[in-house]
Amino acid sequence: MEMPKRIGVLTSGGDCPGLNAVLRGVVRAAANRNWKVFGFIDGFEGLLPPGDFIPLTTARTAGIMQLGGTIIGTTNRGHFVAKVGEGTKAVIPQEIIEQARETLRRLQIDAVIAIGGDGSLTTAQQMWEAGIPMIGVPKTIDNDLEATSMTFGFDSAVACVADALDRLHTTASSHKRAMVIEVMGRHAGWIALYGGLAGGADIILIPEIPFDHEKVAEAVRKRDANSCLSTLVVVAEGAIERDGHLHARTVTSGEVKLGGVGEIVAHEISQRTGKETRTCVLGHLQRGGAPTTLDRILGTRFGVKAVELIAEGKFGEMVSYQNYQVLSVPIADAVHRIKVVQPDSQMVKTCRDVGISFGD
Amino acid sequence: MEMPKRIGVLTSGGDCPGLNAVLRGVVRAAANRNWKVFGFIDGFEGLLPPGDFIPLTTARTAGIMQLGGTIIGTTNRGHFVAKVGEGTKAVIPQEIIEQARETLRRLQIDAVIAIGGDGSLTTAQQMWEAGIPMIGVPKTIDNDLEATSMTFGFDSAVACVADALDRLHTTASSHKRAMVIEVMGRHAGWIALYGGLAGGADIILIPEIPFDHEKVAEAVRKRDANSCLSTLVVVAEGAIERDGHLHARTVTSGEVKLGGVGEIVAHEISQRTGKETRTCVLGHLQRGGAPTTLDRILGTRFGVKAVELIAEGKFGEMVSYQNYQVLSVPIADAVHRIKVVQPDSQMVKTCRDVGISFGD
Amino acid sequence: MEMPKRIGVLTSGGDCPGLNAVLRGVVRAAANRNWKVFGFIDGFEGLLPPGDFIPLTTARTAGIMQLGGTIIGTTNRGHFVAKVGEGTKAVIPQEIIEQARETLRRLQIDAVIAIGGDGSLTTAQQMWEAGIPMIGVPKTIDNDLEATSMTFGFDSAVACVADALDRLHTTASSHKRAMVIEVMGRHAGWIALYGGLAGGADIILIPEIPFDHEKVAEAVRKRDANSCLSTLVVVAEGAIERDGHLHARTVTSGEVKLGGVGEIVAHEISQRTGKETRTCVLGHLQRGGAPTTLDRILGTRFGVKAVELIAEGKFGEMVSYQNYQVLSVPIADAVHRIKVVQPDSQMVKTCRDVGISFGD
Amino acid sequence: MEMPKRIGVLTSGGDCPGLNAVLRGVVRAAANRNWKVFGFIDGFEGLLPPGDFIPLTTARTAGIMQLGGTIIGTTNRGHFVAKVGEGTKAVIPQEIIEQARETLRRLQIDAVIAIGGDGSLTTAQQMWEAGIPMIGVPKTIDNDLEATSMTFGFDSAVACVADALDRLHTTASSHKRAMVIEVMGRHAGWIALYGGLAGGADIILIPEIPFDHEKVAEAVRKRDANSCLSTLVVVAEGAIERDGHLHARTVTSGEVKLGGVGEIVAHEISQRTGKETRTCVLGHLQRGGAPTTLDRILGTRFGVKAVELIAEGKFGEMVSYQNYQVLSVPIADAVHRIKVVQPDSQMVKTCRDVGISFGD
Repeated sequence: MEMPKRIGVLTSGGDCPGLNAVLRGVVRAAANRNWKVFGFIDGFEGLLPPGDFIPLTTARTAGIMQLGGTIIGTTNRGHFVAKVGEGTKAVIPQEIIEQARETLRRLQIDAVIAIGGDGSLTTAQQMWEAGIPMIGVPKTIDNDLEATSMTFGFDSAVACVADALDRLHTTASSHKRAMVIEVMGRHAGWIALYGGLAGGADIILIPEIPFDHEKVAEAVRKRDANSCLSTLVVVAEGAIERDGHLHARTVTSGEVKLGGVGEIVAHEISQRTGKETRTCVLGHLQRGGAPTTLDRILGTRFGVKAVELIAEGKFGEMVSYQNYQVLSVPIADAVHRIKVVQPDSQMVKTCRDVGISFGD
Repeated sequence: MEMPKRIGVLTSGGDCPGLNAVLRGVVRAAANRNWKVFGFIDGFEGLLPPGDFIPLTTARTAGIMQLGGTIIGTTNRGHFVAKVGEGTKAVIPQEIIEQARETLRRLQIDAVIAIGGDGSLTTAQQMWEAGIPMIGVPKTIDNDLEATSMTFGFDSAVACVADALDRLHTTASSHKRAMVIEVMGRHAGWIALYGGLAGGADIILIPEIPFDHEKVAEAVRKRDANSCLSTLVVVAEGAIERDGHLHARTVTSGEVKLGGVGEIVAHEISQRTGKETRTCVLGHLQRGGAPTTLDRILGTRFGVKAVELIAEGKFGEMVSYQNYQVLSVPIADAVHRIKVVQPDSQMVKTCRDVGISFGD
Repeated sequence: MEMPKRIGVLTSGGDCPGLNAVLRGVVRAAANRNWKVFGFIDGFEGLLPPGDFIPLTTARTAGIMQLGGTIIGTTNRGHFVAKVGEGTKAVIPQEIIEQARETLRRLQIDAVIAIGGDGSLTTAQQMWEAGIPMIGVPKTIDNDLEATSMTFGFDSAVACVADALDRLHTTASSHKRAMVIEVMGRHAGWIALYGGLAGGADIILIPEIPFDHEKVAEAVRKRDANSCLSTLVVVAEGAIERDGHLHARTVTSGEVKLGGVGEIVAHEISQRTGKETRTCVLGHLQRGGAPTTLDRILGTRFGVKAVELIAEGKFGEMVSYQNYQVLSVPIADAVHRIKVVQPDSQMVKTCRDVGISFGD
Repeated sequence: MEMPKRIGVLTSGGDCPGLNAVLRGVVRAAANRNWKVFGFIDGFEGLLPPGDFIPLTTARTAGIMQLGGTIIGTTNRGHFVAKVGEGTKAVIPQEIIEQARETLRRLQIDAVIAIGGDGSLTTAQQMWEAGIPMIGVPKTIDNDLEATSMTFGFDSAVACVADALDRLHTTASSHKRAMVIEVMGRHAGWIALYGGLAGGADIILIPEIPFDHEKVAEAVRKRDANSCLSTLVVVAEGAIERDGHLHARTVTSGEVKLGGVGEIVAHEISQRTGKETRTCVLGHLQRGGAPTTLDRILGTRFGVKAVELIAEGKFGEMVSYQNYQVLSVPIADAVHRIKVVQPDSQMVKTCRDVGISFGD
């Protein structure tokens, strides 16, 4: 008979609705096997000696599925950040890995589940290559990972965007304004696309379809001509102009961002159409908040599957949603492969069919 | 060059969040082609001479995507109800079909989009066989249609159930009670399964997994023994006891239902465990309410696709969601083929892994 | 210099959104004075030797304001229930009071804050008369206490009713039905009145205005005649017929309620108008759920004031909201004085002015 | 017997949740008297010849109470804007008033209900002094009008702020950040105060209590020292530094605002504590969105009362909420009298008691 295991779990990188659902899923599936779970604090940092962790029990994780955030903390910074370069494989120092191994050895941890984005999974892969039994759970609120057809947090972010659009819609139409709302999506426009369609946006600007300020202004003018006197514009933070000048004009100062693509787009609309225009940057509102039911379910399924992968000894694998089943793929095959919106996809075509302009 | 078309659309059968999103999608995709749209009132009934309809324009459908219900009404009753028997193909009288044909001819309608459930699609198929150009859009809040992997309304119903469980959870745990919540699902347990998992239910009873009152009571007692002093039970309205006596004990009187499976389960738990137990029947709360973002998007995509099918002359087809694309299948192949929960599926297994009992 | 105090707090009686806000307010105001707080478990029962309690710290109560329920449990039953009779003053046995006193003495508790309804405040008053330093915080989700113009939980319950009406409205109007929704309010119709007005109800039935089934049916028929084909009826659970027969016809069995006033009203409407009618009993959904911002604020203010009353030595007093200030009144003056809806009040008149019928 | 009247209604100035509830209240109370209602489009502008209006019927206003915005539009600009100076009484040109009078005469309008803020009420008062029968309904989302103890829209804005804080709380605590959220309140801090208390803010900065950046930084450091590693700061847009330099440092450009007090506060916290800090400007999200139940009720009551004032011939009066009743006061007595937060009020004291810093 197999011995009950002792497993670790950590959440790394940016906040994402559904993290607590994964943790609860891990703990309950582990409890079902009489395993013990240790939650390492603030991502990989918790692995550094002497080890910063809390025991995660069924009681400790009761009622957390409904909450945003992560009860074991996370960080984007620290000793385990592996930079992703082009053509070069970034690594974390061997010394750090040995320290983590020592902590795990001392605590008699049999395996570690790392819940994180591309960078964190790269770290997990390097640790697995160094012989530490690792399981990955992909986390990207942007839903831009090729290896899984869906990630938790995305549906919640989309709901946040749609809710904001619902709110802005009433005030835009009462005042006949254009309202520009800037949403997440540095490399891929999924949140802007789904949130914009669900929230009844009129114009959606995403990184995958470079836009032209004049075309945007034209769409606004055309709506005015049709007596649709208000216009809602959703802009992904990574949206780019066709001529590529945009990012050079963005001004930032230290930690405080002073002007993003949303404000630039609003400024240009105002200048070109004379229309009163307002901007709203959703920012961290999209990361916080309670997960939708879909994200609660997906997070739970990911957590349960991660425990199953440990039971099967499939280390170096990452859970993945494919065709309505949670399966697994090698972490090595998954990292650095971004899924972007295809400009000729059915979703984009549907948006165009309902009258949405992409400013192209 | 093709002439702009005049198309009809109707919503038939039970209410379902997302219906207005479909209508808006139809109208906008039609406007994109310079087509005119007529919304027939109260489902197929609106087709009866002289024809009861309103013109549906972009302006008329502005802002409706976010609203529950259907702006053109619906009915479960009337002249077009085809009963679904086993082994016998139910039909609506030829005379009724001729009346509808006459209305459409007089209004010069080129095609009709029927949004409805199994019964309504059967009617649509019969009309198509009689030569009326029909397109189907499947509608089942229960998500129990084999021909499409997802239907709009389901996600909203699941969200309603999860929200109710969130509410009952706090009061159940404050008072150490068992709470039984009865949800939709006459033939299939999808809403109970997804809503129960997302809402943190402890016990889920569905038609596909007959339950035993004693097993249910045991699960409650086991939780009490583990100091989990409150228990949430989700029961699909079609849940059945292993010995099959249940429905005989349900009492109804005319339009007013006096006692369903939820009350019976609550009664048995109370009797067998001595625990204070309460029931809540969600009923029509699940059908009303604003659609979730997912349902807004799916509804919109269905509406757009239906118009595309007309443009392509693919009559007798029904839109269908498969592998993240909206495609089409013959209505004839779709009706009467119910998709039920597989007791050995990954979803059920995941539920068991997180400690949910199915009372079996 | 005054010594830091040690104070107890308990939540008694039915669940109510805002209880956790009170607890957090108590703990933070106490922490501000370097006092220690003990949360007694399951209401007064926690006072029985050896004392069932948890220390309540700022950390332990972080993030609870937003949650429904009470983290220290509550009960409607047990040794401390004082029955409220007419003309007779019900008491709890002296022996029980002595046991509570002994627990408090042993734990060196300086004062106890009792958060509860009419019955619980009666108990608190009796304990105060026996020399135990007690402070009361009124709790009635029904908002029916004369001594305070507002109580926490009420606004949340009203929001729950209005949300349900929003949902039922769409399905009622899609189907041209009458929908009857039964809400809390055994002695007073505040929840039905405010929830009904906010949710756009057409008919509101409350205990203070006895109704006539025929008048209700007339109102439904009149709406039909005006092409308002759906009707929403809100019924307080304590609503009574003008001839007084109603309660005799309600059937209950043990813990499971088999038919309330909502079903009776629905049945009568259906019989008298021939209209398809549905019932929905909101039940415990009204007690659970997150408190609204107003209830969070009011709960916090009540908690802070209760601590201030202890600091001032004003025992036997109860916090009370009057004219936008939280003040205090003697518990003895507050209990058993119910505030009911005045049939000739401005609120009722406003309801009539917007076309709402009270079935009278 | 009195002749049925024909009345006008208009919504003027910034958007505010509850406007549609007022309109519906007006229409229904008027219908109750067999009066006709004309909704003038885009505020006072609709009064200019030939008159821009739509008839408002019960059917036309069905289901609008739940919606944000105003179905008859509004504007902050135009011919009727009376500037509010100090010591000088701003006026709109007599010619404009004559044009409005002419429109009303031609349409045989007996009285006009103007729903608007301080500026709009000033206009209404001037029209009344010129002999046009006017009734005022105060509208200020900031709740800063002396003449009424509550205005609709405020509770909805507070709910929006608290919801945002709930979201930011999870991400702030997951990442140990300080988050600064800028909310409405140019002259008064009511939204920041109530929203901040309800959302569990740690620091609240309002115009009435000038703050000191160093005191704010100190409060952040003190929390860190107590292991409360995240801090939520709510800043009213009109908050001012004790030394008064703030507004000079705010940068704006045309219609697009490039940096407000929120960003400045975040920048200073970051500089002074070294803590990672983020800003979120809620902006128009606070104005849009569905009204809370309280705002639905208050809006309805205001609308009904306005019609009653017309019936009683009390022109030049404005509805006002006082001590739980809707009464009326002369418009002339109400305008330009702002209600601000008293630094020594119970609400502020309660905030301090639960550990909230005002940076003073």
